[in-house]
Amino acid sequence: MQEKLTLMIPGPTPVPETVLKALGKHPIGHRSKEFQTLVRHTTEQLKWLHQTNGDVLAITGSGTAAMEAGIINTLSRGDKVLCGDNGKFGERWVKVAKAYGLDVEILKAKWGTPLNPEDFQKALQEDKNKQIKAVILTHSETSTGVINDLQTISKHVLAHGKALTIADCVTSLGACNVPMDEWGLDVVASGSQKGYMVPPGLSFVAMSPRAWNAQKQSDLPKFYLDLASYLKTANKDSNPFTPAVNLYFALEEALNMMQKEGLDSIFARHARHRAATQAGMKAIGLPLFADESHGSPAITAVAPRNIDAEELRKIVKEKYDILLAGGQDHLKGKVFRIGHLGFVSDRDVLTAVASIEATLQSLNLLKNEMGSGIAAAAKILSSKDS
Amino acid sequence: MQEKLTLMIPGPTPVPETVLKALGKHPIGHRSKEFQTLVRHTTEQLKWLHQTNGDVLAITGSGTAAMEAGIINTLSRGDKVLCGDNGKFGERWVKVAKAYGLDVEILKAKWGTPLNPEDFQKALQEDKNKQIKAVILTHSETSTGVINDLQTISKHVLAHGKALTIADCVTSLGACNVPMDEWGLDVVASGSQKGYMVPPGLSFVAMSPRAWNAQKQSDLPKFYLDLASYLKTANKDSNPFTPAVNLYFALEEALNMMQKEGLDSIFARHARHRAATQAGMKAIGLPLFADESHGSPAITAVAPRNIDAEELRKIVKEKYDILLAGGQDHLKGKVFRIGHLGFVSDRDVLTAVASIEATLQSLNLLKNEMGSGIAAAAKILSSKDS
Repeated sequence: MQEKLTLMIPGPTPVPETVLKALGKHPIGHRSKEFQTLVRHTTEQLKWLHQTNGDVLAITGSGTAAMEAGIINTLSRGDKVLCGDNGKFGERWVKVAKAYGLDVEILKAKWGTPLNPEDFQKALQEDKNKQIKAVILTHSETSTGVINDLQTISKHVLAHGKALTIADCVTSLGACNVPMDEWGLDVVASGSQKGYMVPPGLSFVAMSPRAWNAQKQSDLPKFYLDLASYLKTANKDSNPFTPAVNLYFALEEALNMMQKEGLDSIFARHARHRAATQAGMKAIGLPLFADESHGSPAITAVAPRNIDAEELRKIVKEKYDILLAGGQDHLKGKVFRIGHLGFVSDRDVLTAVASIEATLQSLNLLKNEMGSGIAAAAKILSSKDS
Repeated sequence: MQEKLTLMIPGPTPVPETVLKALGKHPIGHRSKEFQTLVRHTTEQLKWLHQTNGDVLAITGSGTAAMEAGIINTLSRGDKVLCGDNGKFGERWVKVAKAYGLDVEILKAKWGTPLNPEDFQKALQEDKNKQIKAVILTHSETSTGVINDLQTISKHVLAHGKALTIADCVTSLGACNVPMDEWGLDVVASGSQKGYMVPPGLSFVAMSPRAWNAQKQSDLPKFYLDLASYLKTANKDSNPFTPAVNLYFALEEALNMMQKEGLDSIFARHARHRAATQAGMKAIGLPLFADESHGSPAITAVAPRNIDAEELRKIVKEKYDILLAGGQDHLKGKVFRIGHLGFVSDRDVLTAVASIEATLQSLNLLKNEMGSGIAAAAKILSSKDS
């Protein structure tokens, strides 16, 4: 019953009916007072989600557009930057930095392992002449299901005193705690089709006062992604270009729902789903791709040994109407990924574990007793602590 | 009854119910076969609309993003370009070109008048060393309601032999004939919230083979707007970044409707609405801002003498639930603009004329007999020729 297909991929994530209903309203003029009211309200809501008093600007575009905007508005040609790279998105920010002629030093970790904060500390401490202008990294590495220790790395950047922290929080914001001001983050990029529970098309870039100071010096060419225009119009509750008006309707409704649930509950739900997914996979005998202590709250990558990951994904999709994500690049066929980001309930997680377990049973590939995975996941989902 | 508010602005334009219904569907995975099928179909439809065998790429962003992409993917730092400037959007492309360090020669015409093709012919003929790499201009200048003679200017560019024509067709595509291949246009940019009858958030850039040749030489920095990535993934019916999936649903439905109506009927409808609007305003005694022979098929700008345009707009909005556009920049208060672009019927045009006439009557500002405007508009709308 593919009409019942449910998304358990890292984005687009499932969208609540009330959000879809808001999305499907007749558009209004983007220069009207009604739209200004909407911009004002959603901006307040976005600040709440980012836990910041700084500016959060909305760009019609993907998360990549927001991240690129953060980079090209705070840096200048030839600037030295440190880029963390432990997955596909880390790789992408290296490409963006190089496309604009930045001097990139890459701090790598193997796919499936987290970036080492000490690597950043060392490089920053050795930079006596304060040549490093920014540290660019991904918080939740969607390609591998690894969460990087953004808080600790940000501390090292603050100790450096000059560099900015530019963070891809596309699959961490709204899934786990990212207190922008408290952690001293300078640029935080995110996208609507993730923790926001909104279809893709809007992205967000939050800027600290330090980031705005750097912006004044930035000489990289830009127009559509020029954040000075977004700031100028944001101060009038507006946008520099025609924004995706209907996605704003959806955004407001989704953020209303998030505010009702509360940040702590949202983070606890994602942590519970990560733990239940990890426990379920382990009980089934499926190895986790990343060590569970560094598992992303948004997505769990699993590396099955006896079956091609794409074959398993295909059966789960066709038989149980659940779309799991595949492995990217060299991980294709080796890894499948279970998204538990955004509008995901305990039922969804239990169902995903059950469907994977049932699929392996039907192929006679179950090592452990049938039901072990579901039992392990259910134990965590029903725990009073979680 | 503001819940009945109807949009007669140059974008967002009114959206059909079936398109809104498609928009409000649950999103699907953007790396799924189902989405590939959608990309394949809409790409064919977009080629039909552009009357081209070349590539039409979709970018999640506004029309400005598409236009900027066209400019920065075909040109290099220091390249000489001619920019036509006879309104707010002409001004914008000058700004984009300058932001990227192009050597810009501006060919101006007064707001409300069209660009003079002979100015382009002269500048191109004098360029013996073939230094001019592109001519950048707006086809339908939304700020003033003027249509520029893109066909003739493109002929002069073709005679030059080296320069490309980069055209902002944001409010002309889907409103009047823009046969990209026949006219020899190289880059055509457009946006979903215009003739497409889709909410804002998707934009389109069509590229000729000559434009792709130029793209290979282009050295301007870009990543999100790098059309090489879009071409590479378009060849696999996909996108380089997460696209606005739900707007694709809406796009397919809207293009289905357009194909059913047919290009000739669509263009005839817009021409009829322009003529009826012009005739209605003249019969009411309201001066057109642009000479009617150069009126845009998308929008008619009106310059009332006895009343502030913003005051009239306010009454028409509050009393008759029609949102008209105001004047931009120095035209604010001096001009109002009636959008007749996209999903607009004869009834809408008649109603707009009637509402404006009724508003002036209520203010005792009617010079001519009440009903003159409606009569003139109705005569054109019911003419067998139109």
